[in-house]
Amino acid sequence: MGYDPRDHHPLTWHDATAGFVSGTDTPRAYLERCLYTIAEREPGILAWVTLNESGARAAADAATARWHDGTPLSPIDGMPIGIKDLLETLDMPTEQGCVAYRGNFPKRDNAAVAALREAGAVILGKTVTTELGASEPGPTRNPFDATRTPGGSSSGSAAAVAARMVPAAIGSQVGGSIIRPASYCGNVALKPTQGAINRGERQATSMSTHGVHAGCIEDVWQVAIEVARRAGGDPGRMSLKGPDGAPPARRPRTLAVLESEGWASLDAPSRTAFETLLEQLAGLGIRILRRAGHDAIETLEARLADSRAMANSITGWEGRWSLRALVANHPDGVSERAKRRLATAEAMTVVGYEARLAERADAQAAHARIAPLADAVIMLSSPGPAPVWAGDVPGKPLNPRPTGDITFNAPSSALFAPAVTMPLLAVGGLPLGVQLMGQQGQDAEMVALARWLLAEAAPVVV
Amino acid sequence: MGYDPRDHHPLTWHDATAGFVSGTDTPRAYLERCLYTIAEREPGILAWVTLNESGARAAADAATARWHDGTPLSPIDGMPIGIKDLLETLDMPTEQGCVAYRGNFPKRDNAAVAALREAGAVILGKTVTTELGASEPGPTRNPFDATRTPGGSSSGSAAAVAARMVPAAIGSQVGGSIIRPASYCGNVALKPTQGAINRGERQATSMSTHGVHAGCIEDVWQVAIEVARRAGGDPGRMSLKGPDGAPPARRPRTLAVLESEGWASLDAPSRTAFETLLEQLAGLGIRILRRAGHDAIETLEARLADSRAMANSITGWEGRWSLRALVANHPDGVSERAKRRLATAEAMTVVGYEARLAERADAQAAHARIAPLADAVIMLSSPGPAPVWAGDVPGKPLNPRPTGDITFNAPSSALFAPAVTMPLLAVGGLPLGVQLMGQQGQDAEMVALARWLLAEAAPVVV
Repeated sequence: MGYDPRDHHPLTWHDATAGFVSGTDTPRAYLERCLYTIAEREPGILAWVTLNESGARAAADAATARWHDGTPLSPIDGMPIGIKDLLETLDMPTEQGCVAYRGNFPKRDNAAVAALREAGAVILGKTVTTELGASEPGPTRNPFDATRTPGGSSSGSAAAVAARMVPAAIGSQVGGSIIRPASYCGNVALKPTQGAINRGERQATSMSTHGVHAGCIEDVWQVAIEVARRAGGDPGRMSLKGPDGAPPARRPRTLAVLESEGWASLDAPSRTAFETLLEQLAGLGIRILRRAGHDAIETLEARLADSRAMANSITGWEGRWSLRALVANHPDGVSERAKRRLATAEAMTVVGYEARLAERADAQAAHARIAPLADAVIMLSSPGPAPVWAGDVPGKPLNPRPTGDITFNAPSSALFAPAVTMPLLAVGGLPLGVQLMGQQGQDAEMVALARWLLAEAAPVVV
Repeated sequence: MGYDPRDHHPLTWHDATAGFVSGTDTPRAYLERCLYTIAEREPGILAWVTLNESGARAAADAATARWHDGTPLSPIDGMPIGIKDLLETLDMPTEQGCVAYRGNFPKRDNAAVAALREAGAVILGKTVTTELGASEPGPTRNPFDATRTPGGSSSGSAAAVAARMVPAAIGSQVGGSIIRPASYCGNVALKPTQGAINRGERQATSMSTHGVHAGCIEDVWQVAIEVARRAGGDPGRMSLKGPDGAPPARRPRTLAVLESEGWASLDAPSRTAFETLLEQLAGLGIRILRRAGHDAIETLEARLADSRAMANSITGWEGRWSLRALVANHPDGVSERAKRRLATAEAMTVVGYEARLAERADAQAAHARIAPLADAVIMLSSPGPAPVWAGDVPGKPLNPRPTGDITFNAPSSALFAPAVTMPLLAVGGLPLGVQLMGQQGQDAEMVALARWLLAEAAPVVV
């Protein structure tokens, strides 16, 4: 297959609605094109756990009638969307990529899913997640190279969008589960400010978000804002704020490069691609700040130097009780990786957990202090393109990160910061994302800056 | 029965452990005394949903052996405790006072319950909660007058402690569900700072806490700190902080009276009892500040003038999706009161919810501004003693608050503030609590002040 950003044309929605108004296209016809692509590509990609084709067709027909009548419920009325199988859905099981949850069917919609339905979106199916959103991978392949991971934990959401099966899909991120798979699959994606999109029943962790994968920045924003305006933010939090449609492109004046923990071990071609992009941006008149010579950036790097372990510790502790019960009740229904994660969490104490929370608060304070310096942070979205992972080798230690490393993603998660990844690089025929990260609440601002970069920067192919 | 604080002797634990050390008493014998009391009084009180007598006896025997060996797991090793039936337990169903949840048995421990077991506590049974912790009452009667409510939603926890069935029980509060039933039942109770005790799976609302009912302030603190040191706080929050045992009594210098929304409609005897107590405290040299002449207190009163509706709106919105699904899946398994609550929530918008969050933040800011004025707020714990409620009358509107009004409780819930209620008043042969409320994080301070008041103030009987 191979990936070249110059001739990859993602599936989009926002530019299809004019046809629904004029009558040259319909949501039902759009859905049928999606189903055709799924029939063609799903056997080699395995992005979906469940498809509700009949339900989707009925919903698309209803949307078709509303567009015909000039009364669409929203700009995403009729949009086929995939839902990561961690989120509960009224009409499909929620198995969380975990044997212990096989057949789990709570018959209720996550708040974000309910909001999508209220906006008219067509809930087409559930997409593959790694087990419980952690490291044990599902079967999904990278659409651009079947030997490679699509990333995780939002594996199926990333792959389904990349393969043009759906224009958008909902993912969720605790460590790096929205941004990294989008990077590996060439999608645009938003991981919003912590709390800005209601996680519904999934409130157990202090640093996780729902987010959106799509083929373009306009669709990312539209889906996110339609959900937020109906479901709000997490309990007690203000929801995503911004305009009715994607905010207009805005040229960044200054961007601060965050190398992050993964920089030292980054492969040379990925580093070259990123540096080439930075040179191009400098040539476009954008001031690029590096850690050298900027104490505030250096301090932020230092506070994030252990962000991967910090994220894992915090999330491990917070999931300890539910995972403990799951393992106890289903000893054969939980992977060896999850059991090891539990063992690590069981060895923690409140004191250790709260020390990690304090580290996180320190990092957030350091992030706030770079706000006056730059419009946003710019950084890679993953440590290189998607790695090959052929499976565990009997007798060898388990690979801790078969769906890739969170080293470029733990920062935005720990900082509660909005991040937008853009498919601006290709390395060895595979996508590699670049992300913008803003201060908490600057989601719309990051989308505006990303929109400018996507329009004005030429993708770099290495 | 009737209640007179001067001759009511609550069941306590902290003063029993010396006997476990010397061998004159054992946790098993203590448990048997509890079971005897339960056998005697439960038929007239109906505090329990489930009792696990065999499990409790086995746990008490293990604790007995540890005390005998000089190796108790904690000062509450062997303490029989009741758990409000909203919290999940490994060994008993969790029915949430709701027909739709009959037989619900997730076989896992809420984080706080797990912590209690780790500390050696004996999880004796599940106590009655109102339906889903809201307004539809369970069968429990007030131990001091069977025609009256024990309060809610922690009805069974309050009644079981008041009837000397157990020395302590876990409750939870969204609006007023810990402090009000403790007031009606003559218990000491702590509603901690928001987030200070891990709610485990119960993270859906932004203003709810687990808390402790007990017969004395020492036991309240000991249970709370043992839980917090093992389960920590809510995800992302610092846990309850303070000494290993109950903090030493501390005499308050200045207390600020908060009248709250319920003051205007308060019955005359309750007001007299409270004012008499305040006079007594003034006579003990404590400066009592009233709203007149203190702008900061007046501002706080103003910001809390609608706190009941604010609390109900916020909680209603936050519970909207889960209640919607419950009603859809079990139309006959949910009360009419709950359905009306859902209808109110369904009529809300994100904008309305966030306006309420802003009101709450304003009230919290006003509360912070009284910190320099006084050591704590002092206020009634309920609008008078427990009301009579004989049941709904067919054809008449449903009583919105059959377990009593939250008007004196919504403030501490909305302010995320720690509150300790003390059984210092009796009105018409029924208990009436007085509470101290502190700034966020001042839980131990409130316990220290309450300890002084409980030791030094004479109960007022009207």
